[in-house]
Amino acid sequence: MFETADRPQTVDDALYEAQEPLLRHALLEAQQRLRQAGRAALLLFAGVEKAGTGDTVNLLNAWMDPRWLDTLAYGPPTADERARPRFWRYWRDLPPHGRIGLRLGAWYTGPVSARVAGRLDAAGFDRALEQIADLEALLADDGLIILKFWMHLGREAQRARLEALSGDPLHAWRVTELDWAQWRAHGDLLAAGERMILRTSTGDAPWHIVEGSDPNYRGLRVGNILLEALEARLSPPTDPPSQAPAPEDAVEADDRADDGAEAHPIPIRPRSILRDVEMGDKPPRSHYERELVRLQGRLNLLQRRAHAAGVSLVAAFEGWDAAGKGGAIRRVTAALDARRYRVIPIAAPTDEEQARHYLWRFWRHLGPAGSVTFFDRSWYGRVLVERVEGFATDAEWRRAYAEINHFERQLCDNGTVLCKFWLHITRDEQAERFEARQKTPYKQWKITPEDWRNRARWDDYEVAVHDMIERTSTAGAPWTIVPGNHKRRARLVVLETLCDRLEAALPPAEPTPRPADGADEPPAADPEV
Amino acid sequence: MFETADRPQTVDDALYEAQEPLLRHALLEAQQRLRQAGRAALLLFAGVEKAGTGDTVNLLNAWMDPRWLDTLAYGPPTADERARPRFWRYWRDLPPHGRIGLRLGAWYTGPVSARVAGRLDAAGFDRALEQIADLEALLADDGLIILKFWMHLGREAQRARLEALSGDPLHAWRVTELDWAQWRAHGDLLAAGERMILRTSTGDAPWHIVEGSDPNYRGLRVGNILLEALEARLSPPTDPPSQAPAPEDAVEADDRADDGAEAHPIPIRPRSILRDVEMGDKPPRSHYERELVRLQGRLNLLQRRAHAAGVSLVAAFEGWDAAGKGGAIRRVTAALDARRYRVIPIAAPTDEEQARHYLWRFWRHLGPAGSVTFFDRSWYGRVLVERVEGFATDAEWRRAYAEINHFERQLCDNGTVLCKFWLHITRDEQAERFEARQKTPYKQWKITPEDWRNRARWDDYEVAVHDMIERTSTAGAPWTIVPGNHKRRARLVVLETLCDRLEAALPPAEPTPRPADGADEPPAADPEV
Repeated sequence: MFETADRPQTVDDALYEAQEPLLRHALLEAQQRLRQAGRAALLLFAGVEKAGTGDTVNLLNAWMDPRWLDTLAYGPPTADERARPRFWRYWRDLPPHGRIGLRLGAWYTGPVSARVAGRLDAAGFDRALEQIADLEALLADDGLIILKFWMHLGREAQRARLEALSGDPLHAWRVTELDWAQWRAHGDLLAAGERMILRTSTGDAPWHIVEGSDPNYRGLRVGNILLEALEARLSPPTDPPSQAPAPEDAVEADDRADDGAEAHPIPIRPRSILRDVEMGDKPPRSHYERELVRLQGRLNLLQRRAHAAGVSLVAAFEGWDAAGKGGAIRRVTAALDARRYRVIPIAAPTDEEQARHYLWRFWRHLGPAGSVTFFDRSWYGRVLVERVEGFATDAEWRRAYAEINHFERQLCDNGTVLCKFWLHITRDEQAERFEARQKTPYKQWKITPEDWRNRARWDDYEVAVHDMIERTSTAGAPWTIVPGNHKRRARLVVLETLCDRLEAALPPAEPTPRPADGADEPPAADPEV
Repeated sequence: MFETADRPQTVDDALYEAQEPLLRHALLEAQQRLRQAGRAALLLFAGVEKAGTGDTVNLLNAWMDPRWLDTLAYGPPTADERARPRFWRYWRDLPPHGRIGLRLGAWYTGPVSARVAGRLDAAGFDRALEQIADLEALLADDGLIILKFWMHLGREAQRARLEALSGDPLHAWRVTELDWAQWRAHGDLLAAGERMILRTSTGDAPWHIVEGSDPNYRGLRVGNILLEALEARLSPPTDPPSQAPAPEDAVEADDRADDGAEAHPIPIRPRSILRDVEMGDKPPRSHYERELVRLQGRLNLLQRRAHAAGVSLVAAFEGWDAAGKGGAIRRVTAALDARRYRVIPIAAPTDEEQARHYLWRFWRHLGPAGSVTFFDRSWYGRVLVERVEGFATDAEWRRAYAEINHFERQLCDNGTVLCKFWLHITRDEQAERFEARQKTPYKQWKITPEDWRNRARWDDYEVAVHDMIERTSTAGAPWTIVPGNHKRRARLVVLETLCDRLEAALPPAEPTPRPADGADEPPAADPEV
């Protein structure tokens, strides 16, 4: 969940200075529309210490009209507040129509702190989150626009920030022993944060993870998200454009912004996680072949143990066209008894599938305990191709993250080991593979006009993949991004991941008897096993 | 929650025979519209044994087109099903577009049985319900029409039914020792059922409680609910009516049904719980005055103890116009120290209140621990006057039951004693009081044209009150229906209820020291206390 935000994001000063006035102007206008519409908005901030929450809130206060904005930071409840139900103080302070409320330390802080400190167990934490989800649903149903920001710093970035502040005589007072204690609990905080986001990120009250090390980036990013949410939820301004441009002109019209039309800030997004994938070196053939055999043997053994223990394996393979999904799956299945696994290729849904919820076609293919199922493309189509091509509506793909997490959680709760692979190649590598396919007669069937069409939407897919990983990579069902420019390397990574995940889920193997004096000898094969 | 369904409901044969063909016809037509719309529906049945679930499902099968209907009864999971996640078999059997699925023993049965048998604790039950609520939300978001029926028999009605069956040689085989064991667990089943309905009755997947002792009633009632849900969720048939009647003619047009226009079945509703309120005799003045003083003294003492213990009391007074809410509240407050309580009259919302969620105005008036707050009219306005007068939309008042239960649960979780009174008078009694007010100069201010207007909608209010009590009377926050034709009686009932509820919530009083040999003497007052 936080992998995508663990890498520092930056926006250079030139871009910031160009964008900031546009964003301010657009936010002020959106504030007016919020008033006209009689709606209110609530922004909740949580996250890692020193990730810039305070500065970001100050920035929003500086940018927007203060008459229609109020900022509140909650501390421990007062005696007056403790004497009433927990949500009383938050109800008291609800922003009225027309106003945007910024809240620090609101209803998430108590349960998260208690969870991190161990004062609340997992079930109690879930109950607290359920109450919060009910409250937010009730407020959202009434028209309140709710946005939640997790201001993030990776563990290293947080340490660097604390050290930088401590080393600066002007700022050393900002760092307390408590900050270091919180830094040491970084992992616990993230575990609680992940559960919180999974349980309470809904279509009506979504969480946004914002990396906080660079003030330029985090300010523009939060402002962008707020602007986008307000624009999506409020009707356009009352005076209609004098002449609506034809759809084909729309992009061009955007580019003409300087010619007098009103300039709109460009959306600032985090640098895609895919941009930083290290492709590594091509493994030599001899190394590859040795490793392949070793890993296939290891997987075969592990799968037998898993079958005996009733532990199922489900693996979803996603990736760019020509990234080598099929080849990777074949190297895996070569290790297994053909009676023991199934490969489910996901193409266009059948009539029967079309007539039901989109998850139905995946549920139907789940095998019994101890089985192995590989999905060649998967339920993630909803937030990839269906999002990018517009086959799913905005509301449909946005709520799909929660639906997918719900689905996967049931698999994990049932003891299934779930692996998710994104086979990644660079854009150049894809071009080479496409051309090679077109030139090689026996590979031509592999390349279709659709591949070229998808390639043209590379940037859109990159955004969709980034969001998918951010929202669905969980401790129980993490994504593995497989560097795929070198096919051999990709196949070894896939095999090794499957082995490691299966092994971690199984009870330890019976120790193999080993002669006391022959530490280097291979263990004797036991014909009874 | 089940008070409203504990009394047997009946429909006589003549009405049944007149309605049944109309309902069948309308259901068949609705089935066609479901197909045309490419939608599906899912009906889940749960409830008390012998409440006619099986017969009702058979009836629906007989009434509707079997090609677009499928019925499934789930037993304990097979080995195949146990080897997969719990919801797998329900996913497998999801009805495709165009079809209505009837399900017995589906996803609620496991958790409810485990809870009743004590194999699942309250927290585990809540988690199971949460997973179900997530599943239903995901299916409803996809367009599935979900209806849930709790087929009910009161404890006595269930016993009568079991005895009748046992006594009949032809049917005695139907009654097993298990049935009697389940009858003995009736209270546990209802406790689990209440929690289940509170947690999972949502706007998109509501529960309907249907009293099941009379086959005529339960058949028509279930058919009516299904028809109403289908009609509300599907667009009207494709061929428009040749001439739409003007709104004023609408009622008349209904009455003209026999003249060739298509007859629509009349909605069959349970007999309102208000129809069976026993008004009792008028207490003699001497008895009343003695009791009033005794109860006021008792309440005063209890409230001091509650204040010391930090236990708050919140009471909501609702009732017909002229039912005597004000007088009852004054008899209560007369018992209390004026610094210790507040009476909040709820009239039209202020500008400030209008600009926020409708529950905000009630949250803001909650006192600190140990306080007493009386609401003269309350948050129930949402499902009473706002529903009947159309001030709230259909969606708004329907989801308000869940919102109110959410609100009240937080009060109860916080240790607050919450009492809810419906002051009930008969229609004739109201007429007499209105006339008396008009004739008495110093009472004329009490009667307004609005009172007469409300009176004209008596039947609509009766339905709204019945639904309100069914959906919001819970173990933690039960409704008290106060028989109000005799004001003295009403006031004593209110006082006694407040005393009993407060007393039950307080730790036992310190035993008053009492001389061993003077059992009849009043205890000596202790000046130190």
